[in-house]
Amino acid sequence: MKLIRYGQPGKEKTGVIIDDVKYDTSAFGEDYNEAFFENDGLARLAAFVESNTGKLAKVSDDERLGSPIARPSKIVCIGLNYADHANETNAPLPSEPVMFMKSTTSLVGPNDNIIIPKNSVKTDWEVELAFVIGKKASYVEEAEAADYIAGYVLHNDVSEREFQLERNGTWDKGKGCDTFAPMGPFLATADEIADVDNLKLWLTVNGEPMQNGTTANFIFKVPYLVSYISQFMTLLPGDVVSTGTPAGVGLGFKPPVYLKAGDVVELGIDGLGTSKQTVKAYAKN
Amino acid sequence: MKLIRYGQPGKEKTGVIIDDVKYDTSAFGEDYNEAFFENDGLARLAAFVESNTGKLAKVSDDERLGSPIARPSKIVCIGLNYADHANETNAPLPSEPVMFMKSTTSLVGPNDNIIIPKNSVKTDWEVELAFVIGKKASYVEEAEAADYIAGYVLHNDVSEREFQLERNGTWDKGKGCDTFAPMGPFLATADEIADVDNLKLWLTVNGEPMQNGTTANFIFKVPYLVSYISQFMTLLPGDVVSTGTPAGVGLGFKPPVYLKAGDVVELGIDGLGTSKQTVKAYAKN
Repeated sequence: MKLIRYGQPGKEKTGVIIDDVKYDTSAFGEDYNEAFFENDGLARLAAFVESNTGKLAKVSDDERLGSPIARPSKIVCIGLNYADHANETNAPLPSEPVMFMKSTTSLVGPNDNIIIPKNSVKTDWEVELAFVIGKKASYVEEAEAADYIAGYVLHNDVSEREFQLERNGTWDKGKGCDTFAPMGPFLATADEIADVDNLKLWLTVNGEPMQNGTTANFIFKVPYLVSYISQFMTLLPGDVVSTGTPAGVGLGFKPPVYLKAGDVVELGIDGLGTSKQTVKAYAKN
Repeated sequence: MKLIRYGQPGKEKTGVIIDDVKYDTSAFGEDYNEAFFENDGLARLAAFVESNTGKLAKVSDDERLGSPIARPSKIVCIGLNYADHANETNAPLPSEPVMFMKSTTSLVGPNDNIIIPKNSVKTDWEVELAFVIGKKASYVEEAEAADYIAGYVLHNDVSEREFQLERNGTWDKGKGCDTFAPMGPFLATADEIADVDNLKLWLTVNGEPMQNGTTANFIFKVPYLVSYISQFMTLLPGDVVSTGTPAGVGLGFKPPVYLKAGDVVELGIDGLGTSKQTVKAYAKN
């Protein structure tokens, strides 16, 4: 199943994609949030869709897409999870996962604008495979991790490198700016992805290829990450975990290359669709 | 006004404290959450309390207290904001605030147990003044910061030092474990605190004085922090910001001293009451 949320920011309705056509599931009556995932929402939604075959209204392709999941309790990210990316940023290979958090206020739709923060000169891109937690996860064994994954989603872990690395704090400072987490286009339930360790992922800026990676190069694989993170904090249903980015970010160029107003970023992952963001300068509303 | 939440974990009711007596405000019909703060809840609650003088039911002192605010979108913390604490941890004085985030799953009531995580050997204490955001804050000017503060609350920023400092990641790993954010006993609205820059704060372990500080020693004061953080991420109504801890944490002792099962931690801040946590070893539910 492929889940979407669409409509105006903050007022998104829910839907599903079946055979490349978007359908409205508002009548199901629940947002795709913590309570939905916690209360077996995916199975109930599948039954609802099945019992309404042929009756669901189509959603126009003109509709804006929101994040396919509602605001989670947290967005946990893994840093330096591809050897090629660790090398390009001059970081040593991690002996265990690097973890940080993105403010959930950074979450936007897959094709929304990326706003360069005030005083930013180093806004960068990162195509990432993210997964969504399906049930409360605390001290999970790696062998049981699959039970805790609701599905997968495409994520651009937009990052301000000066804020992240040169401003005297943890990485969180450069990761949680507004619009820094374009998510989607859809949440693919876990059964839709045959081999999560063999997905190509790519990103272009103004049509120029920047990132071309594969999850076959993960240093730490998804089940390990579920288990690992759950030793340090409880993951709640609907929480998002982003698994790191392959080589090809702006910071890795010599000299580095960063986003500027007018740039267009496109990205995609096998089986998880594509997204496209236009970069804008910050302007007071 | 002093706000409380009381009752079983996850099922807390709301209340207020007037002249040291706790009263139930469930009939007000709203939890103290993002929507409450966003929609002028404090003023409406004050009017409700005023118009129900003499009619509100008393809350027994036997009732468990929960966090006085419902789970926020985020808990942002400032590190090393007292020179004496930076010195004791051998950290240089920060040239600008150190920021990190605590997983909101760490939030518990003021007198709930602190659970030492599995495999933890360095669980430590940190008495802190926290403030709660009253309205959406993005790129706030320091001169206007006071308008964005709903009130103040006592917080124990419990920290696992090995997870925080020796496990190859940002501080977040050692800050967000379950039960690591005992909050309360109450939220004091901003008008209750005459001078936030002159509050004594203290913490004892098993009755032994460990921390004795004053917010007069802040490196970065509250209005500056509101403005600073809001340059990097949007703060939402109900969000918590914890302002750092003075000297006297376990990590600062030579050799360091950490919490063990059976220890009792008590802490307090002028005007914000006291809290008391018993330390327990992790045990699978």
